[in-house]
Amino acid sequence: MPKSDLPNGEPQTIGGFLFDYIHKKGVRHAFGLPGDFALPTFAWLERSKIECVTMTHEPSVGFAADAYARVNGLGLACVTYCVGGLNMLNSIAGAYAERSPVIVISGGPSAKDREGDPLLHHKVKTFDTQRRIYAEVTCANTILLDPRTAAAEIARVVDAVIEHCRPGYIEVPYDVVGEPIVPFDPVQTARRVTDQESLREAIAECTEMINQAKKPVILAGVELHRFKLTDIALAVAEKFNIPIAATLLSKSVIRENHPLYIGVYSGALSEPPCREYVDQSDCVIMLGTFITDMFLGMNTAQLSRSSSILATSEQTRVRFHRYDGVVFGDFLNALKEAKLKKRGKFDNPNPVSESVPLKKDELHDPLRSADVFRILSLHIDDNSVVVTDVGDSLFGAIGLRTGKRNEFIAAAYYCSMGLAVPGTIGVCMADPTKRVFGIVGDGAFQMTGMELSTAAQLGIGPVILLLNNDGYGTQRFILDGKFNDIRMWDYVKVCDVIRAGEPDVVETKGQLDGALRKAVSSNKISLIEVRLDRLDRSQPLKTLTDEMAKLRNPATRTPPPGKSSGKKTAAKK
Amino acid sequence: MPKSDLPNGEPQTIGGFLFDYIHKKGVRHAFGLPGDFALPTFAWLERSKIECVTMTHEPSVGFAADAYARVNGLGLACVTYCVGGLNMLNSIAGAYAERSPVIVISGGPSAKDREGDPLLHHKVKTFDTQRRIYAEVTCANTILLDPRTAAAEIARVVDAVIEHCRPGYIEVPYDVVGEPIVPFDPVQTARRVTDQESLREAIAECTEMINQAKKPVILAGVELHRFKLTDIALAVAEKFNIPIAATLLSKSVIRENHPLYIGVYSGALSEPPCREYVDQSDCVIMLGTFITDMFLGMNTAQLSRSSSILATSEQTRVRFHRYDGVVFGDFLNALKEAKLKKRGKFDNPNPVSESVPLKKDELHDPLRSADVFRILSLHIDDNSVVVTDVGDSLFGAIGLRTGKRNEFIAAAYYCSMGLAVPGTIGVCMADPTKRVFGIVGDGAFQMTGMELSTAAQLGIGPVILLLNNDGYGTQRFILDGKFNDIRMWDYVKVCDVIRAGEPDVVETKGQLDGALRKAVSSNKISLIEVRLDRLDRSQPLKTLTDEMAKLRNPATRTPPPGKSSGKKTAAKK
Repeated sequence: MPKSDLPNGEPQTIGGFLFDYIHKKGVRHAFGLPGDFALPTFAWLERSKIECVTMTHEPSVGFAADAYARVNGLGLACVTYCVGGLNMLNSIAGAYAERSPVIVISGGPSAKDREGDPLLHHKVKTFDTQRRIYAEVTCANTILLDPRTAAAEIARVVDAVIEHCRPGYIEVPYDVVGEPIVPFDPVQTARRVTDQESLREAIAECTEMINQAKKPVILAGVELHRFKLTDIALAVAEKFNIPIAATLLSKSVIRENHPLYIGVYSGALSEPPCREYVDQSDCVIMLGTFITDMFLGMNTAQLSRSSSILATSEQTRVRFHRYDGVVFGDFLNALKEAKLKKRGKFDNPNPVSESVPLKKDELHDPLRSADVFRILSLHIDDNSVVVTDVGDSLFGAIGLRTGKRNEFIAAAYYCSMGLAVPGTIGVCMADPTKRVFGIVGDGAFQMTGMELSTAAQLGIGPVILLLNNDGYGTQRFILDGKFNDIRMWDYVKVCDVIRAGEPDVVETKGQLDGALRKAVSSNKISLIEVRLDRLDRSQPLKTLTDEMAKLRNPATRTPPPGKSSGKKTAAKK
Repeated sequence: MPKSDLPNGEPQTIGGFLFDYIHKKGVRHAFGLPGDFALPTFAWLERSKIECVTMTHEPSVGFAADAYARVNGLGLACVTYCVGGLNMLNSIAGAYAERSPVIVISGGPSAKDREGDPLLHHKVKTFDTQRRIYAEVTCANTILLDPRTAAAEIARVVDAVIEHCRPGYIEVPYDVVGEPIVPFDPVQTARRVTDQESLREAIAECTEMINQAKKPVILAGVELHRFKLTDIALAVAEKFNIPIAATLLSKSVIRENHPLYIGVYSGALSEPPCREYVDQSDCVIMLGTFITDMFLGMNTAQLSRSSSILATSEQTRVRFHRYDGVVFGDFLNALKEAKLKKRGKFDNPNPVSESVPLKKDELHDPLRSADVFRILSLHIDDNSVVVTDVGDSLFGAIGLRTGKRNEFIAAAYYCSMGLAVPGTIGVCMADPTKRVFGIVGDGAFQMTGMELSTAAQLGIGPVILLLNNDGYGTQRFILDGKFNDIRMWDYVKVCDVIRAGEPDVVETKGQLDGALRKAVSSNKISLIEVRLDRLDRSQPLKTLTDEMAKLRNPATRTPPPGKSSGKKTAAKK
């Protein structure tokens, strides 16, 4: 087989090319868990310029790579065949749903192994099972069975991941990684080209609609971040003085002390001034926004299609019609140049307020969920990233605003539990200059919290706020039963197990403030168990769970069969 | 909608019918983890006669239900939509590969939710994504979108699970569980009927082949256990005095002190007398055996197709040809009645030896992997079940034989890590009279070991032997690198975290013996950390990893790129 001559003049193997190609696209760290079919691939990874972080469990591999990708722009997860890949599926499904560009590399059996379809360990139904499954949660997939096409296939999948901001799947038979690469002619993927006539008509219609509106508002969606288009959208807002809200999934895409920024919109879950402004708007301009049930606050949002514009990477809609062939970035640029009228000075109904330090007389108050976010905001600065799990960790954070730019990462649409702890590891590796906070409930901590072991191994120091409300708190308010009960762990003893970390248990406002002060002055892992009442919840979570209870616990139709497990206060051992 | 009149005279809901139907098939416990789309289903489960065990993480839900199914004959796993179901996929894939009859019930969005294909939380690509994925790892699947067909669909999937001994998938939209059931006429599934002429010819040919053989041997496969056909196979062996071996996957299907039993056959991994007997046999009768690479000892087995008979639920093969239309059970019954000649007294080359208690002068010897199984055998009795994870936990157990009947559960074909700890919970619930031992490596313990929390919650007392060899030991011998290193936990401190269990750390033979003696006299969880040298391995694992290194670490082709992480002794803090 001919050896290739790559720019650096060295002949390369497929394994070498694979990681070199991904490294050149900006990946500096991989998250992985090896297995026998993947060992040769891991060996080539270890030789490459990419540092590999071995995690303890595959669900965490996917979460860490996802969080890394959100900060870095591209992530990499390496696992073994089926027993590894299938165990990571949920995390990658979440990355697909929320457009996080993660490359999945899995080991696999050789072409020869597959002949005659024998029963090889790790095989489920057919040798193609894992690829078929991953096709459901990725934008491109390949099995490198033919060394002659391997390089082109690698480039095709990696480029698709970057273009679509969705995961892609590359299965590497164990015997091909050492094969010499065959040179290929890089084909520039045909980029989508905007239909200029459609664009002109769309912009003309939007211009008229926005100019006639008394109260237009921009909803800045997560695709602005994913496709690096935030600056253009913000320029539109600033040029014409149009206020701007974010969604939970895109929270922090706009710096939260921007004078035009009015908060996170999520229907009835929003802060009231933000909700009122958006619901009363006569022209809602949604840019890169996912119209999800969570964004709509479980359908409490009052958005009328007759007064909205929606532009995303997938569609351009004005009121009830659609313009085909309009590329999102082109639309934004044209909107910036459109003849929109400049509005007068904006009187922000929901400006960021300065964080109020704790008063002396409240130091001994028992903590409530809402306090946690207020106190956390005292310790967040320009350099902070907050990674939240679902539950009150996420919804309570709607009101978390600081006067400074910060980053916020959450599975705010897919809503899988378990992202926060492994996610902090991904963020720490993507940007070691950041102070990373993870906020996680006790239920989610029991799923992936032990991943702090990997943080210890790496010598990084995330601050973990473990909101302990004794069970699946969110669900208690929707429909309760014994199934929402979990065992009360002595959570901070996890530090003894992993032989690292600085534990703290807090029950009052003053204790949390003190623990956070200590945590941000340390470079070690801080694990702060925040004991909350079992029936405590933030206002947004109350709104959400009340709405969900109407759907899931229709007492009129289904007699509520839950034998509620009592209303004990949590966290008393 | 009409209400049904079921045998008990009560009108029933779909939720009531679902769990009633499954309960009548013999399921007494479900393993689950609730989520909002599944809450109404969990509420009906809690009302039913089935006890629900809430686990900490979905991978464990699947493993516990799988182990339960292997002991009980049918198991049940309940999860929520996508974020739950996709997180359990690997465990269910293993149940598929190894024929474990697990019913998967997932919550799901309502029919109305799905109209217009909106973005609902937990959705990945389409509303059908999870069902399509589960179709790859189940024998039957359904979404109960139409209440009118729900009862028939439930019966169809549950019956298929029982018939095929493979997992099945039932997705329950949250709004249908409270709907009244619509009666259906149970359709007796058309059972496969044997083609009697084919059977006669097959038996005639087998009879001649076996009678002409000097040294026939039966390989008792796992399907004998799954389809409850062990007694017939054993009757064949006893009636004609034909020796019988098992496979790792079917270990303990035949009681291991049976005079005809010669051990676990797995090519070069076998105990030498067993390997020699099978490899020299001139007629190998494989009954319900999966021909896997693990069974073949990574292709070190010397089985000739020209002298073998293979009968399974899927095919009947003699030498190089196949008889279609022969049902496995009918073949076995006919073989029992065939005119096989009765052999003379069998001189067992590998009889079970009495366990030898530890001698005084070896009490202080450092432990090696092989000793663990010898010492464990001193504490195993008729009432014991051993659940092993992969690695030396599994392969080292090849030589674990006792004079008593015992049960052995392992992912010996699919070889996923993580089964042992949640698996012990499944077994304890399936048969509370058993003393259950879990054997798990440190790598697998870091994945699912915290599930001991659930054992504590249930008040059950499995004995966990945690074989700590400081990392992914099996893989070190195949291809080593930093990626095989994991953090050294202070494992027994897990008891402090879960606030239960009796910890022990052992480094000598005497210490292990003492710890096991204490463990079997206790009803509480015992967590025994067994400290092994990092480079220790049993003889079967040595054979296996040497073979795998030839495949995965072809130094001739791929220069071994691993920077070995040194040869420190494990478990020294």
